[in-house]
Amino acid sequence: MTYRAPINDILLSLNHGAGLAAALAAGHYGDFDGDITAAVLEEAGKFASDVLAPLNTVGDEHGIKLDNGKVTTAPGWPDAYQRWTAAGWNAVSGPEAFGGQGLPLAINAACTEIWSASNVAFGLCPLLTLSAIEALDAHGSAELKKVYLEKLVTGEWTGTMQLTEPNAGSDVGALRTRAERASDGTYRLKGTKIFITYGEHDMTDNIVHFVLARLPDAPAGTKGISLFLVPKFLVNADGSLGERNDIHASGVEHKLGMHASPTCTMTMGDKGGAIGFLIGEENAGMRCMFTMMNQARLGVGLEGVGIADRAYQQALAYAQERRQGKAIGHKGDGMDPIIAHPDVKRMLMQMRSMTAAARTICYATAVALDVSVRAKDAKVRADAAARGALLTPIAKAFSTDIGNEVAYLGVQVHGGMGFIEETGAAQHYRDARITSIYEGTNGIQSIDLVTRKLGANGGASVWALLDELAATIKQVETSNDPAFGTTGAKLRDAHAALERTSKWLLERLASAPNEALAGATPYLRLFGATLGGCMLAGEALAAKANGEAEPQRYVALARFFAENVSVQAPSLEKTVTESAEAVTGADAVLAG
Amino acid sequence: MTYRAPINDILLSLNHGAGLAAALAAGHYGDFDGDITAAVLEEAGKFASDVLAPLNTVGDEHGIKLDNGKVTTAPGWPDAYQRWTAAGWNAVSGPEAFGGQGLPLAINAACTEIWSASNVAFGLCPLLTLSAIEALDAHGSAELKKVYLEKLVTGEWTGTMQLTEPNAGSDVGALRTRAERASDGTYRLKGTKIFITYGEHDMTDNIVHFVLARLPDAPAGTKGISLFLVPKFLVNADGSLGERNDIHASGVEHKLGMHASPTCTMTMGDKGGAIGFLIGEENAGMRCMFTMMNQARLGVGLEGVGIADRAYQQALAYAQERRQGKAIGHKGDGMDPIIAHPDVKRMLMQMRSMTAAARTICYATAVALDVSVRAKDAKVRADAAARGALLTPIAKAFSTDIGNEVAYLGVQVHGGMGFIEETGAAQHYRDARITSIYEGTNGIQSIDLVTRKLGANGGASVWALLDELAATIKQVETSNDPAFGTTGAKLRDAHAALERTSKWLLERLASAPNEALAGATPYLRLFGATLGGCMLAGEALAAKANGEAEPQRYVALARFFAENVSVQAPSLEKTVTESAEAVTGADAVLAG
Repeated sequence: MTYRAPINDILLSLNHGAGLAAALAAGHYGDFDGDITAAVLEEAGKFASDVLAPLNTVGDEHGIKLDNGKVTTAPGWPDAYQRWTAAGWNAVSGPEAFGGQGLPLAINAACTEIWSASNVAFGLCPLLTLSAIEALDAHGSAELKKVYLEKLVTGEWTGTMQLTEPNAGSDVGALRTRAERASDGTYRLKGTKIFITYGEHDMTDNIVHFVLARLPDAPAGTKGISLFLVPKFLVNADGSLGERNDIHASGVEHKLGMHASPTCTMTMGDKGGAIGFLIGEENAGMRCMFTMMNQARLGVGLEGVGIADRAYQQALAYAQERRQGKAIGHKGDGMDPIIAHPDVKRMLMQMRSMTAAARTICYATAVALDVSVRAKDAKVRADAAARGALLTPIAKAFSTDIGNEVAYLGVQVHGGMGFIEETGAAQHYRDARITSIYEGTNGIQSIDLVTRKLGANGGASVWALLDELAATIKQVETSNDPAFGTTGAKLRDAHAALERTSKWLLERLASAPNEALAGATPYLRLFGATLGGCMLAGEALAAKANGEAEPQRYVALARFFAENVSVQAPSLEKTVTESAEAVTGADAVLAG
Repeated sequence: MTYRAPINDILLSLNHGAGLAAALAAGHYGDFDGDITAAVLEEAGKFASDVLAPLNTVGDEHGIKLDNGKVTTAPGWPDAYQRWTAAGWNAVSGPEAFGGQGLPLAINAACTEIWSASNVAFGLCPLLTLSAIEALDAHGSAELKKVYLEKLVTGEWTGTMQLTEPNAGSDVGALRTRAERASDGTYRLKGTKIFITYGEHDMTDNIVHFVLARLPDAPAGTKGISLFLVPKFLVNADGSLGERNDIHASGVEHKLGMHASPTCTMTMGDKGGAIGFLIGEENAGMRCMFTMMNQARLGVGLEGVGIADRAYQQALAYAQERRQGKAIGHKGDGMDPIIAHPDVKRMLMQMRSMTAAARTICYATAVALDVSVRAKDAKVRADAAARGALLTPIAKAFSTDIGNEVAYLGVQVHGGMGFIEETGAAQHYRDARITSIYEGTNGIQSIDLVTRKLGANGGASVWALLDELAATIKQVETSNDPAFGTTGAKLRDAHAALERTSKWLLERLASAPNEALAGATPYLRLFGATLGGCMLAGEALAAKANGEAEPQRYVALARFFAENVSVQAPSLEKTVTESAEAVTGADAVLAG
């Protein structure tokens, strides 16, 4: 079946759950006209359904081929990429000075969900280009921007991020790729990078690689890393393509999923060294790279949301059509569609509500990042930056965990058919699996949340968020809508658990950091379960207040999430605060 | 890496967690000599490591081929199967009168875990033969047994279970395959079956199919189903193979995992009808089939345990070897093995403790089934039968859920390498996915647990089990071993939650059955989390009492499970008892 972008759900989430409407009303988006949002998303939905979705299975089945350094993508993919750039989708949030439309990240976040839902392996390519744009725009010289930025913004060329090496994955500081200064101010790079997404392909004439490397006299670790722009083809003074640079795909991986996206081993220096151009200062590459990574982390979170929504849509359609057994109260002959069975309803509601919660967390992250650069008031910008920093690891890890869980349930709803590749449910399950690993594993995100985000300023950004969530919970309670069931109580318990656990972790960060680290993963889950529950409740209240069609649907959805996911918060609190010894004392068990 | 059977853990689980030692001491196993258990399992472990484990990747990569009705298995597989039968492994628990060794199911359960861990796609074949043996032994005529039973017991021929049709999956009663009476007392079968595991292969000369079909005058639904034995080759009076029967593999599935196991579409009747022999009475096939299915359900639970253990062993080895980053307190240069990081320790402990809990639940099911047929006292047999019936859906669903969760974590521990097929972690993840679907989806198991098992005799078998668990919890509390941490408190809370939830469900079964069904899945999880926690605690106490080497390892393992998994029980209780409306009221959400 095809994919239909859930525009109404997306708009409610964006405007009310994620706070875009309030930020617009407060003037934080300057002269951006919020009224165009729906039209942009409708068009994105059409492009996704018409062009990208039909290529999703094709890409999975064909995969890619590497032959003598050349990568061939699946049939129809280069053409779809041309249509993508021609329609301007690559340029949605790019800087206007370089051919972009300058639309908010929040709009692009919704688009990213839509691309990921329709064809996540395709969407991954522009996602990385977007990160490259961000890094070049923020840290590149005027000269480099002049040559490369517009081509990246329009998508005429794509970008890659090259961090990982065989011995430098989560520990980026261990990388060994060398960059030597040349007399003309450029650099010569030698080394091998692995797991490079779209490191080579046939969809564009040129590829612009962003490579982390180490100068000969660089200090050890992350303080000695520099960022270089390394084009596949050098660019002549007139903008035409020049010589082939000394960077080549020497291998591609055979992966569990994302078959259509080439994951390359890149070799530099077979012919003396790849010519690279420094971005930012020497030895300051990690800072530049973090710019790229944060953007990419949100993007990966949105991949989780997109895959989840696609898996949900497919499972829902199957459950409405497939008939097995008779539900209680069934009259007459024949069988009921399986959606009539409570256990199937539970799975579908679990899928839909988790997807909706992850969506709003991701969109809220994008709104915070927008406001952090667009608002006029410095205090507003700073607060938004802190909010965006706090939410980014949650957006990435919680949403991709959910992407995997929802895709799992998508297979389950299909029963035996789910295990058959032809059905398509298995592809979502396979594709989703990388999202909790790349751009920083979800464990790394959890550690970032505890040590850097909670740990910053005595937890100030967490307390500020908790205050807002408390206000939402109060509104649920005072709404007196019986359809909320026990939502208010569940969210209040979750909120209290999150507050206590945050305090406990803050103390341990100072006194017993290993105990804080031991609780990082369940803490992030606790955070997402609480935050997501409050956000969905807020959306339901907004739907009622704003006269949405059938607002009670959103009340029922929020209720399900609160009673099935947020309800886990008190248990997760105990896991964080009472099982640290069970983790730190694990050595004897694991040795035996 | 290869697989090493964890004999010490298995023996502790079998003897003390699952109650084999106590059942032996009480004389329920007759003249079975428990001292041979260790030796049998050591040999099984050797065979698994030497013969089966090396073929696991080969089978995944080669898969199977269907050509003109003939299935070719992966290189080395037919030879391994010959070694399997020659070594007597097929006959472990088969009836002694027909060439079996007559060993307890409990011993065979441990072997099944070992086969599944080393090569689950291989182990699946004898697992189904075992079910066929059980059905034929229990319900077949003396004549049929004489011809077929010994061949199945030794494994010279394999067996299949043929239930599923395109429109009859979970709803077996909807099947349409026809059986017509022939004048010689045999039957002629016509129809199509799908998803038939090892329906055709090249590892044995003959295959004995057990097929559900409907007579022309049969009543509708499950009351009109008969079970037939349909051999691939008919058997002559002298025991030699005769004519090819009219049953053929007309297709094989391209699956997410279990690539080496042929999943066939079987067509009967292209040449007038497959000759079938009735097993049991006409229209009484469902009862015969249930005999096969219960055995198979436990077997599938053990597949979950086996895959989980294999994934754990592989992740542990990787975490000990792979170096990234520096743990807190790291001195000097270089990086630490990732097992030094608390978040990785948490993942490994989660994997190991969940695997251990699932293992003991499965073994306890096998012990109950053993005692239900071996004990002298009728009351003991009846109680054990009730216990076995209660535990079977938990053994199947909880263990296979855990198999999937552990395989997921196994990929996660490997980071980016986990997504690369070459690493092997992804195969476990793919293979595990079917276990929560086949032999009755885990949703079906949960419904069975609530409606048939809890629902029987006013919950008597649940109350009896809860009494035993309460005694274990008391022992934990009175042990005063500080290494148990909060295990006692967590298990007491879980026990209380399980008791309250069971009572709530029993009431709803009568008054509001859809609300009971809505809570079935979280109830099964609550049951497993409580039962598994108590069993691991019991094993730890036994390890201390019996002078096991390093008994505190088992205390630490039980503690981790209680503080990370059993701790979820109160939340799960709320999900069952407070979110039924959110499920039954889902229609409006899912329609939009």
